[in-house]
Amino acid sequence: MSTDDLVSLRRDLHRKPEPAWCEFYTTARIVTELEKRVDLDELHVGPDAIAGDHRMAVPDDSELAVWLERAREAGADEAVLERLEGGHTGAVAVLERGEGPTVGLRVDIDALPRRESDDPDHAPAAGGFRSEHEGAMHACGHDAHATIGIGVLERIAESNFQGTLKVFFQPAEEVVGGGKSMAESEHITDVDSLLAIHIGLDHPTGEIVAGIDGFLAVKHLEIEFSGESAHAGGHPEQGRNAVQAMATAVQNLYGIPRHNDGKTRINAGVVEGGSAANIIPDEARILAEVRGETTELMNYMDRKARHIVRNAANMHGCDVEFSTGAEAPSATSDQELVDIVADVAGRTEGVSSVLERDELGGSEDATFLMQAVQDNGGNACYVGIGTDHPGGHHSATFDVDEESLQHGVDVLTGAVEQISRD
Amino acid sequence: MSTDDLVSLRRDLHRKPEPAWCEFYTTARIVTELEKRVDLDELHVGPDAIAGDHRMAVPDDSELAVWLERAREAGADEAVLERLEGGHTGAVAVLERGEGPTVGLRVDIDALPRRESDDPDHAPAAGGFRSEHEGAMHACGHDAHATIGIGVLERIAESNFQGTLKVFFQPAEEVVGGGKSMAESEHITDVDSLLAIHIGLDHPTGEIVAGIDGFLAVKHLEIEFSGESAHAGGHPEQGRNAVQAMATAVQNLYGIPRHNDGKTRINAGVVEGGSAANIIPDEARILAEVRGETTELMNYMDRKARHIVRNAANMHGCDVEFSTGAEAPSATSDQELVDIVADVAGRTEGVSSVLERDELGGSEDATFLMQAVQDNGGNACYVGIGTDHPGGHHSATFDVDEESLQHGVDVLTGAVEQISRD
Amino acid sequence: MSTDDLVSLRRDLHRKPEPAWCEFYTTARIVTELEKRVDLDELHVGPDAIAGDHRMAVPDDSELAVWLERAREAGADEAVLERLEGGHTGAVAVLERGEGPTVGLRVDIDALPRRESDDPDHAPAAGGFRSEHEGAMHACGHDAHATIGIGVLERIAESNFQGTLKVFFQPAEEVVGGGKSMAESEHITDVDSLLAIHIGLDHPTGEIVAGIDGFLAVKHLEIEFSGESAHAGGHPEQGRNAVQAMATAVQNLYGIPRHNDGKTRINAGVVEGGSAANIIPDEARILAEVRGETTELMNYMDRKARHIVRNAANMHGCDVEFSTGAEAPSATSDQELVDIVADVAGRTEGVSSVLERDELGGSEDATFLMQAVQDNGGNACYVGIGTDHPGGHHSATFDVDEESLQHGVDVLTGAVEQISRD
Amino acid sequence: MSTDDLVSLRRDLHRKPEPAWCEFYTTARIVTELEKRVDLDELHVGPDAIAGDHRMAVPDDSELAVWLERAREAGADEAVLERLEGGHTGAVAVLERGEGPTVGLRVDIDALPRRESDDPDHAPAAGGFRSEHEGAMHACGHDAHATIGIGVLERIAESNFQGTLKVFFQPAEEVVGGGKSMAESEHITDVDSLLAIHIGLDHPTGEIVAGIDGFLAVKHLEIEFSGESAHAGGHPEQGRNAVQAMATAVQNLYGIPRHNDGKTRINAGVVEGGSAANIIPDEARILAEVRGETTELMNYMDRKARHIVRNAANMHGCDVEFSTGAEAPSATSDQELVDIVADVAGRTEGVSSVLERDELGGSEDATFLMQAVQDNGGNACYVGIGTDHPGGHHSATFDVDEESLQHGVDVLTGAVEQISRD
Repeated sequence: MSTDDLVSLRRDLHRKPEPAWCEFYTTARIVTELEKRVDLDELHVGPDAIAGDHRMAVPDDSELAVWLERAREAGADEAVLERLEGGHTGAVAVLERGEGPTVGLRVDIDALPRRESDDPDHAPAAGGFRSEHEGAMHACGHDAHATIGIGVLERIAESNFQGTLKVFFQPAEEVVGGGKSMAESEHITDVDSLLAIHIGLDHPTGEIVAGIDGFLAVKHLEIEFSGESAHAGGHPEQGRNAVQAMATAVQNLYGIPRHNDGKTRINAGVVEGGSAANIIPDEARILAEVRGETTELMNYMDRKARHIVRNAANMHGCDVEFSTGAEAPSATSDQELVDIVADVAGRTEGVSSVLERDELGGSEDATFLMQAVQDNGGNACYVGIGTDHPGGHHSATFDVDEESLQHGVDVLTGAVEQISRD
Repeated sequence: MSTDDLVSLRRDLHRKPEPAWCEFYTTARIVTELEKRVDLDELHVGPDAIAGDHRMAVPDDSELAVWLERAREAGADEAVLERLEGGHTGAVAVLERGEGPTVGLRVDIDALPRRESDDPDHAPAAGGFRSEHEGAMHACGHDAHATIGIGVLERIAESNFQGTLKVFFQPAEEVVGGGKSMAESEHITDVDSLLAIHIGLDHPTGEIVAGIDGFLAVKHLEIEFSGESAHAGGHPEQGRNAVQAMATAVQNLYGIPRHNDGKTRINAGVVEGGSAANIIPDEARILAEVRGETTELMNYMDRKARHIVRNAANMHGCDVEFSTGAEAPSATSDQELVDIVADVAGRTEGVSSVLERDELGGSEDATFLMQAVQDNGGNACYVGIGTDHPGGHHSATFDVDEESLQHGVDVLTGAVEQISRD
Repeated sequence: MSTDDLVSLRRDLHRKPEPAWCEFYTTARIVTELEKRVDLDELHVGPDAIAGDHRMAVPDDSELAVWLERAREAGADEAVLERLEGGHTGAVAVLERGEGPTVGLRVDIDALPRRESDDPDHAPAAGGFRSEHEGAMHACGHDAHATIGIGVLERIAESNFQGTLKVFFQPAEEVVGGGKSMAESEHITDVDSLLAIHIGLDHPTGEIVAGIDGFLAVKHLEIEFSGESAHAGGHPEQGRNAVQAMATAVQNLYGIPRHNDGKTRINAGVVEGGSAANIIPDEARILAEVRGETTELMNYMDRKARHIVRNAANMHGCDVEFSTGAEAPSATSDQELVDIVADVAGRTEGVSSVLERDELGGSEDATFLMQAVQDNGGNACYVGIGTDHPGGHHSATFDVDEESLQHGVDVLTGAVEQISRD
Repeated sequence: MSTDDLVSLRRDLHRKPEPAWCEFYTTARIVTELEKRVDLDELHVGPDAIAGDHRMAVPDDSELAVWLERAREAGADEAVLERLEGGHTGAVAVLERGEGPTVGLRVDIDALPRRESDDPDHAPAAGGFRSEHEGAMHACGHDAHATIGIGVLERIAESNFQGTLKVFFQPAEEVVGGGKSMAESEHITDVDSLLAIHIGLDHPTGEIVAGIDGFLAVKHLEIEFSGESAHAGGHPEQGRNAVQAMATAVQNLYGIPRHNDGKTRINAGVVEGGSAANIIPDEARILAEVRGETTELMNYMDRKARHIVRNAANMHGCDVEFSTGAEAPSATSDQELVDIVADVAGRTEGVSSVLERDELGGSEDATFLMQAVQDNGGNACYVGIGTDHPGGHHSATFDVDEESLQHGVDVLTGAVEQISRD
């Protein structure tokens, strides 16, 4: 793929952002692009690529249906769409080139449920490739990830690489809901070395981070308060106000004491409640997440959060239920692979700076795949591809410097080749 | 109409509850029922019944479209539906019977956006006339109001009443959004005496309240917080958290000091915010209402509420905007009409108890119509029709004792006749 | 007593405000003044005037000692002070004048723990009779009440009144802690008619309210949170933060739903917690009060408040204990006495307006004495003496128009005489 | 000093804990002990030991007077007490032993305002040396620090040390109020190498940490809310409630977003407000502290805290004022001294484990002295002396293992000697 091809593909994906488990257009586009460009040995799609039972945080059928219809209208290949039924998205592409190690490359493909900026200073808006799905946005660069994954496959196919390359196009990273389903699939079991990538992360274009650590363990909590409604004018005293319970919980969740052992995080990311201005609300909901620098710290936050929520509910006479949300562990990058990536990056054109290590400071469900490979005796490494991004990750003005697409393809291709040689 | 007819009509309306400005099926059913039963002189429908510019709290086009489609599927008269375009619902039916006063009767017709109980102890569930619109419910008895309005029209048409009777089938009472649009229409200007009714209100079957007062002045506030999103794991410090602002506001709104001059009310009836578990929320919304025993007290709550909200927003670095919500004044029932109603009720079969006066303790936009008539030199009266109701108003198990439908028709018919004689 | 005498006495008491159960100087001054002016038949002081076991909200010994010492330094009669040991303050003065009814007059004598304004526009500051006890203030006019009580005694002693007059100089009204101890004393048992008074209450000089009702039932709650301290920098996660529990409680206490049945009140009047900036607070306290228009409404607030507090404590891992606080019931004024007071007031010089009834909208432990008399078959009445007061009751700039002292003496003297004649 | 002497002195100081700037008995005891044991060249006491103008967080005169009186009653040397007037506590002891470097040793001497456990399992309670000052406690081991300081002086005086040793007995560390006043005194200017110590810190008896870093920068904020009082029953709507403002602030202070760049801390350590149960509170206060792993992070917390507090005040119609509180910077231990301490500790009897580095995770105003020495071209090191402590620092059951007193004296004496030799 020429640099122009990479840019063109990334922009097409950017125009069609799809949230977790709704990557219908995205998966179809990846499949058709691969079929056009690469002579693959295997291409596992949808339910064949993932262990469906291990999917987490799958939206309900009506939401899936809406996105499937949008993918259809956007011209996605109907034959592929049929295979993705019920929100079984993603793909695993396999290239077998004789004797040699099995190298995995994991790229995630989903977008975020947020509106993209329409400010003329925002390049996608100015350049005509802003999100066409209002309220969804590639605000974390996964459009670039998918593009790099295809680029690496094509380059390795053309190279004299010896071994097997598997590229995991993983759905549902943003809800930490997809990593486990790929880690539980059969495709990961024979992987000797796994590379995962992320673009941006506050590193400028031309900078490569050979090995990223500092993944925060994360858990999502779905919290449902149920109280009792009443006429807000006539008998406010008869209500058991679920919104008061929710607000009390939110105030106190953010006030969970900081922990001396390391980073902790809490977010009440989505809230809603009530039905009408004149009814004391009898229902409210929080979709929260807790994180910790270690699993213990994440569990500390989880325990505290549940305790607070239970008491906030009880304070206002409400019941509360917790649903099992998505979850991901921590992980570390193996030095052996870090050394290879650093070495390759140092010799890659356009790369002006190589950091050996950095901390993510966020969460990732690539950690499920990294753990699976490491548990099997293999090694794993999470690579950062610097890119100048005007807005922060997840913000309305996030964008990537498209020059870094080529850096990603070059460094990863080089690393895959080097691994097979070592 | 026989008692069976009343029950049957009420149950049909109960099955098809429609929220404010979405009373498409309801309006069409009223129109077809009237055309079948009564030889009206005028029947003003939709935009001809109301002053469209004075509608408040109209939902957006997509919501209107959903309900219009449902009405169509439910078999509503297509010709009527066409006249209701854009959420212009409601009707005014006019019966002219020679010289005499113009008497108005106002009944409201909308339902609430809440789920109806499916408990087998809940009569509509057991009797097969539970809401067919999941998430909407006639939880305040407006299905009975509309039914009584038609019943009175038919009875007066058959009587030797002298004068003009206008029945106002008013939409959008629950959001206090429809009363003003009827009060601003030309139809109210010549009304000499206005009767409005409400069923239930904690009065048992067989009890009539001749004159209700104690309407709380009410105002709805739509509050939009906007902050800045950030990655909740990576850079929580970069966010300006609209949900924290909202929760702080909710906690303090309910804490507005009680006022010694009389009743005050506050409710954060609907809240929502945020987009994903891992994004610091940059948007949140509260749909609140404030009430007061007098307009001054309502304004006290309104002022305090806005002040609290502004500071809660600013505290968390958020902007906030207030939208004009619906609003209704207070009102009182005129003694002259109270005396007539009490007198008639005392002589009505099935009425076992007559209270001269009671307090509503809630709000009503019938007050716009009452004020309009009183400002024109006429008089007005708000009548309570007792009914045993298992659940409270606005609760999932609210229901009416259908025996009271006949009481309503009898008392109101008698009162209209008496007014024309006096 | 001349008007000048009344003013002079009131100013002396105003200069020496003493909080509940610390009215050492005040009681001594009353006793010496009475001994000088009136030939009493009985004068019960301190433990002889009250049922000591029924005192509520008595401060601890060290606080009592401080105030006793101040009274001593201010020149209070040492012999009287000795009789008041342990915070047994107050007095009951008895005048027997032959056959006739026993009429009681209850005046309260304590001050508030608040700083008086030193603004030159504040008359006591300008006139040199501002509080000499920094942090205490007669901000509710009890200095005037005590003065009027003495004035009435002197006038009745000089009149041809037939019967017995008992004046109850009651301590500790502000903490609703003294009324019960006088109601449980033997002195109340033979009272046939009881008058209680209050000055001000937003009524102007020259206005008399013959019978006040609308006493809010009240209860005080002492709430102690205990958690666990920790080093706020080193191990914040090890603390169980009593101040967080307290703040959560306060926010939610003020948010207890308003009740449709009538007035309710909540106040977190005094709070404190923690020991140092760098220690996670392990202790916190709230002195709260709840009120209701009826005892049921007060109990509704009490129940809700305790429930909220328990959950706020538990939410932050704290224990909580409630101490029995002071309490007072509601009461009503008997029409028979209201008529007498209205009649007398209408004939009193300087009285320009007589209201038959008004609502207090606050609480009072005179209700204990009123109930005791009414339970014994007697009647009771709470009389309002209007006075122009620049600041509101309990505020730093409260003051009385001294002209109203004479009105109080005149109206009450007239009423006592009239009662004995009827 | 024998080990018994060390234990005996430490227990005496433990019995007489004195808070910041009230170390009257403590200073006097140190002075008399030194005069008895060591032939000092200079002994600067109180105002001669510190730069009085740079004291921070000095209590008011009445509090100082109470503690001075207690010191007197406890038998403190009257001549020393006279020199400490106005809360000028602390001492600097100087030993000159010929040519050589000037070595400083800084020990802090103040206690905490918290109650000590009287549980029989708490060694000071069982052993009869529990705090005699109810409500004050050596809960951080400064009694041990002072003891070690004297022990080192005596040992160095008996050694053949060449150079000058200055021991800084620093007051008011717990309020980070004393460090600056010693850093601004003339005594620090010629110090070439400074050692500071802390006992415990979760390190067991026998463990020495050669160099501690990770001091959190800290700032104290005194926050005064002022609103308007009102009668809580009669006119709650007229109040501007300072306790509601305070509670809103507390809830939101603890909710300041965690920062990705490092540790942050917030504590509302002391709160109070209001005057009586029946008065809407017009005053409230928070004594808070903010900390950060760097000065920038501390400033982030400071800025956020002030912004929250201002909006919480304004939300409830209150004014707010911030007073300048105490403050301390961060600091690091110099490798040169860390190496010396590690080397000496490794050769010290009873020391079973030597850590080269650890993080404090708290704050310290020793950093002012460390910075001053480092700014002058010298070096500084903060040494940890492990001790088994049953309760955490600042908790009611904190205690030291007295065996570690000797370890402290030995390691510090050895380090001082080694420094003079290098």
